[in-house]
Amino acid sequence: MGECTVSEFDEGTAVVRRPDEAAGTTAGTMAATTSVFDAELDKGWQIGGGINGGLLLSLAARAVGEHFAAAGASHPYPVSVSGYYVSASRPGPAELRVETVRTARSHSTGQASLLQADDEGLPLERLRVLAHFGDLARADEDVRTSATPPQLPPVEQCIGTEHAPPEFLASANLLERIDLRLDPAYVGWALGKPSGEGRLQGWLRLADGRESDPLSLLFALDALPPVTFDLGLFGWTPTVELTAHIRALPAPGWLRVTHSTRNLAGGYLEEDCEIWDSRDRLVAQSRQLAVVPR
Amino acid sequence: MGECTVSEFDEGTAVVRRPDEAAGTTAGTMAATTSVFDAELDKGWQIGGGINGGLLLSLAARAVGEHFAAAGASHPYPVSVSGYYVSASRPGPAELRVETVRTARSHSTGQASLLQADDEGLPLERLRVLAHFGDLARADEDVRTSATPPQLPPVEQCIGTEHAPPEFLASANLLERIDLRLDPAYVGWALGKPSGEGRLQGWLRLADGRESDPLSLLFALDALPPVTFDLGLFGWTPTVELTAHIRALPAPGWLRVTHSTRNLAGGYLEEDCEIWDSRDRLVAQSRQLAVVPR
Repeated sequence: MGECTVSEFDEGTAVVRRPDEAAGTTAGTMAATTSVFDAELDKGWQIGGGINGGLLLSLAARAVGEHFAAAGASHPYPVSVSGYYVSASRPGPAELRVETVRTARSHSTGQASLLQADDEGLPLERLRVLAHFGDLARADEDVRTSATPPQLPPVEQCIGTEHAPPEFLASANLLERIDLRLDPAYVGWALGKPSGEGRLQGWLRLADGRESDPLSLLFALDALPPVTFDLGLFGWTPTVELTAHIRALPAPGWLRVTHSTRNLAGGYLEEDCEIWDSRDRLVAQSRQLAVVPR
Repeated sequence: MGECTVSEFDEGTAVVRRPDEAAGTTAGTMAATTSVFDAELDKGWQIGGGINGGLLLSLAARAVGEHFAAAGASHPYPVSVSGYYVSASRPGPAELRVETVRTARSHSTGQASLLQADDEGLPLERLRVLAHFGDLARADEDVRTSATPPQLPPVEQCIGTEHAPPEFLASANLLERIDLRLDPAYVGWALGKPSGEGRLQGWLRLADGRESDPLSLLFALDALPPVTFDLGLFGWTPTVELTAHIRALPAPGWLRVTHSTRNLAGGYLEEDCEIWDSRDRLVAQSRQLAVVPR
């Protein structure tokens, strides 16, 4: 990546503010401050029928962050972000409407709606997001953690995604944007022998070398193949809700990412993700609720 | 509880729709359907400085559910609910503004804002909520779970909350509304010897005998003392975000509730909760992000 080149991730999550356009008043707050942004959903981030849910969460968080920055808030980083996915997004133009929920001492809290035009040109919501922004750079250094980083074989002993099911690869453009090396202990599904444990883990970085930051961690939390592969379920598992917590600013280098599920029931499963950075710090956690493949 | 008596929980989460009042247009959707409700936050649900966060989440979900029911939606139960807490609520009147985000085949998705008047009588937001509603009664019966219910001593060998720190009990009215029996293995903190593991677990039911349903599970996910007691931290741990997933309709009887944390860092901790019902089914899961006591 040349010094003056914009990374694929930053290009994919770029938002352009519409000057002097307020998004209207809102049900939730009196005299809410609002912003409207335009974005382009690039097909390079496609997975299955739509754009990757993690990329959309990063995009929405970027819009919220720019909205707060323009208002002079001193809370530059997403701390907690919840996405409610309500329809499948497609490559093409998108609009983001952002409003301030509340600005307080510790957090600035915002809401974003991501919309695209439907077949008749009417705005159709794809994703509704709530987010707390804070200042992770000023975080308390007291760490008492019983969580331990995953034990992974060295990067060169892990394997790429070329062994994923062909029907998965056929609609997974985003795999070209990431460098993912999966732990061989949990890729038996590629040979027809899933472990049944409900786990996937591996090394991850962006393919063009862009280092991680809180925004790219939001994407990384949803970048691996679905954990249902390890249960022998190869269909599509649409995310209905994903909540991410960014727990620390990530150090440069490879990320270690784990996905696991403990309860597939009633047509849903939860998928928990953890991301550890190169200095063994737990930098992000998420849980998503997804629909079980039929 | 007499047959015609309203339970304390249902009284505490009652909402009264304002006739023919729309909450205004919204930033997120075109021509959003909106409702406004009035509620009363009863001091009986107080804990520390404010009203219990789980009770507020139940209250907001009840308003969203009534909003959808009035619109004829066939999605009666909360499946996923995320609350972003932005200021501490107080006993007294509150207003709930609810809007439809989207109604689709599997889910109806809504948003709620809970507001109270500030010292000058202006509306101040306490809590912003997103929720997917669905139909848990029609859920797929396929269950593949590796999660196992907690091993608890019998109810009569567990202990009440009378041994909690006096400063906690002094502002914990809500303990009178619940029957909570904690596992002795994780109440060493009451004797000055916290286990340090970051775990609390016990049996829980509503004191007046009201059986559980998805709405009361939202409260039960945040009804135990903070898990930080088991780390020897006895200050106040305000919730900043809580996402709950209701995974099945609960059976009657005692609930088993576990709380745990694995990562206290950067001034925050996550607190994971699971609730198991009397037929050994995992009926609810949640994670909250809370502020570490100083």
